Amino acid sequence: MKRETIAAISTGMTNSGIGIVRISGEEAFSVADRVFMGKEKLSDVKSHTIHYGHIKDGEDTVDEVLVMAMRGPRTFTGEDTVEINCHGGTFVVKRVLETVLKNGARAAEPGEFTKRAFLNGKMDLSQAEAVIDVINSENEYALKSSLNQLKGSVRNKITDIRNRILYNTAYIESALDDPEHISLEGFSSELEKTTAGIRNELSELIRSADDGRIIKEGINTVILGKPNAGKSSLLNVLSGYERAIVTDIEGTTRDILEEQISLGGLSLNVIDTAGIRRTDDVIERIGVERAAEYAERADLIIYVVDASRKLDENDEKIFSMIYDKNTIILLNKSDLDTVISAEEIKERAGNIPVISVSAKEEQGIRDLEEQIKSMFFKGDVSFNDQVYISNVRQKNALIDARESMEKVLESIENGMPEDFYSIDLMDAYESLGSITGESVGEDLVNEIFSRFCMGK
Amino acid sequence: MKRETIAAISTGMTNSGIGIVRISGEEAFSVADRVFMGKEKLSDVKSHTIHYGHIKDGEDTVDEVLVMAMRGPRTFTGEDTVEINCHGGTFVVKRVLETVLKNGARAAEPGEFTKRAFLNGKMDLSQAEAVIDVINSENEYALKSSLNQLKGSVRNKITDIRNRILYNTAYIESALDDPEHISLEGFSSELEKTTAGIRNELSELIRSADDGRIIKEGINTVILGKPNAGKSSLLNVLSGYERAIVTDIEGTTRDILEEQISLGGLSLNVIDTAGIRRTDDVIERIGVERAAEYAERADLIIYVVDASRKLDENDEKIFSMIYDKNTIILLNKSDLDTVISAEEIKERAGNIPVISVSAKEEQGIRDLEEQIKSMFFKGDVSFNDQVYISNVRQKNALIDARESMEKVLESIENGMPEDFYSIDLMDAYESLGSITGESVGEDLVNEIFSRFCMGK
Repeated sequence: MKRETIAAISTGMTNSGIGIVRISGEEAFSVADRVFMGKEKLSDVKSHTIHYGHIKDGEDTVDEVLVMAMRGPRTFTGEDTVEINCHGGTFVVKRVLETVLKNGARAAEPGEFTKRAFLNGKMDLSQAEAVIDVINSENEYALKSSLNQLKGSVRNKITDIRNRILYNTAYIESALDDPEHISLEGFSSELEKTTAGIRNELSELIRSADDGRIIKEGINTVILGKPNAGKSSLLNVLSGYERAIVTDIEGTTRDILEEQISLGGLSLNVIDTAGIRRTDDVIERIGVERAAEYAERADLIIYVVDASRKLDENDEKIFSMIYDKNTIILLNKSDLDTVISAEEIKERAGNIPVISVSAKEEQGIRDLEEQIKSMFFKGDVSFNDQVYISNVRQKNALIDARESMEKVLESIENGMPEDFYSIDLMDAYESLGSITGESVGEDLVNEIFSRFCMGK
Repeated sequence: MKRETIAAISTGMTNSGIGIVRISGEEAFSVADRVFMGKEKLSDVKSHTIHYGHIKDGEDTVDEVLVMAMRGPRTFTGEDTVEINCHGGTFVVKRVLETVLKNGARAAEPGEFTKRAFLNGKMDLSQAEAVIDVINSENEYALKSSLNQLKGSVRNKITDIRNRILYNTAYIESALDDPEHISLEGFSSELEKTTAGIRNELSELIRSADDGRIIKEGINTVILGKPNAGKSSLLNVLSGYERAIVTDIEGTTRDILEEQISLGGLSLNVIDTAGIRRTDDVIERIGVERAAEYAERADLIIYVVDASRKLDENDEKIFSMIYDKNTIILLNKSDLDTVISAEEIKERAGNIPVISVSAKEEQGIRDLEEQIKSMFFKGDVSFNDQVYISNVRQKNALIDARESMEKVLESIENGMPEDFYSIDLMDAYESLGSITGESVGEDLVNEIFSRFCMGK
């Protein structure tokens, strides 16, 4: 299929040192030759080489540029690609693009280069989706997870499951076609095992979608504790840690103070509930209610206990809020004379992990970090084999596939005939195929790539 | 002189398709080899080639990238340069830069790559300044003017003048050293002609600085006229013309309505004085005063006359404001029954050009455009030989040089001895040298490049 040659600005639209206009398609070199004046014609140069020259719009010089000449299929899109590295002013980059469009290229739609890569078989749909996730990633783990998906972690996992489903379907079909040579004797119990195994793997992947969201968007964290327990100093320490990003919104009232903190490569969206607790009873009730509301929706609660003061009824209230949540108790002011010991707290806390810290002395923060990682990623976050789904579309396809596998299990349990199984197996096969893009319609493809930024 | 290897993000810091981390310096290839894993070591590849691979921070993959390997001196900085084209997400680009900085490069200061290009003799100071002007240019002529300067138009002009000055100084020195063989007989009148010629050329260049500002920042234009003369429809036509850029600031009161209009590659900053003229006398006086104030400071006044109504005392007031200004009269509503003829207006207007337009029918706008160009650029703007100074630093150096040339003329007139001339000639030579950077101190160089954006 012949596709038009497309072009777009691929760099950010703020004045900067370098801007790139990317051209992809069969005509990329001839379009570029019409606008680029250098020592040689680009059509004559070796692939993957760089050339100095000028972009000309008729007689007018539009810019002094470097041009990257790359012939398909060894390119991002799989097609012939020319990238014009010009000066990075927004006006001049637009002028270069305009000149390219005048000379035979069409303006690319958002994500169209990646769509071409997908359509040309350079990557499957899960990898294409990973491209935009890499660009939008805002922390270390989100980046790693997206890069893993880009390398094919999701594709490999899904392909593996689909192959097992296909093998079983094919076996059933063959046996039904040729019952004399292929026996279905005992097949059901075999299939039951396989199906249950796949169902569990799918459940595991669906569960990973929550981790995926947390990796991508950060852990919604609420800090609870009595006034003067050291919540603010904790926030300060966390904020200053490892080049943390702190959003300091002026004029924000203290009860909705939210900070984005980067902790050892993780993002925490921290809500500080400090100050909402007052001595006046009515206000205190509102404060506690509000804290409870935040706590209810949080992924993680950090409960700061002041080790230099005895537990009181306020602490009891907090315990009542956290007993069924992901909570870490920080025993703060461990540098002072303490009246509560870690043991005492641990006894009261039951299963909740307790860490002694001194926000003032910046001690114990590393332990906190490790604790959070172990809570959310079962120990150290390893991206070597763990597959994270971080995409609602993929998650829904997995849920559909799991449902189909449940139906297979049901049919087996009810002793239904074998051809019943294969319908549901093929449904699961199809659902999973939509993740990698092997069975998706044009509409879905268009919808997916429209979420991309321009120039990718 | 050995310089450290530097690195910075050279693309705009918004999430986009591609981001570039640029590394320049003697160690550029070895730094890159420490972070880039591809098929080959970059140290082994040919210059000006492109390579696919991954950026690694120890064991961690930071991104999938294309790398441009370019060996000096055939590079922007003149030094070995590696450009890492990574995914254009702000987090991932920062991570790539961070990895490069960890592996032996130092963070570049704003403009430091261009400063290197200057220090390595790849361009003179006027060209280096043109780089940032290209990036910041916001219209066609500003871009062309900056590109011309980048190609060396200012450098060539200044070098030419300096050579003539140097020749004359050298002649004087030689004659004074060796009066027996070299005669200064009649030299004064010869030098007087040359000096006056150079003085005039310098004046021409200084005058071009005003054009340069106008090219760069746009022509400050005020539209005057009675209510209902058709000023708003004119604005609409101008705004819609040739993909005009219109900044429509909501909530702006009409009397300070300012629009940026792009007209045939020129920028006009148009202030519409519509609505400030009322029937009530007091308010009218304020309105007229305000319009007069704007008109006083304008580069250009467009006075819109309604051809379907007789001139009245309001028009007389306007005539009193514009008689000594750059003005164009537009005889609007030329499509209706007119009660004023062009001839009638021309008689009243004296030297002011009159153009018949119909804003409604979009007629006459091209004539207006041509008129503006001829007013500000003496006919069509030709950038082939015309040198525009658009830089205050350069303008001041030119003023200093002209002053020195005036002194030479004075000395000649007063019959001073020849060695007097050469001091002032050398002063002019030095002042002009500061434009091209041949006689500037480190402080000035640092100050100039600090105005650059990061990564250039």
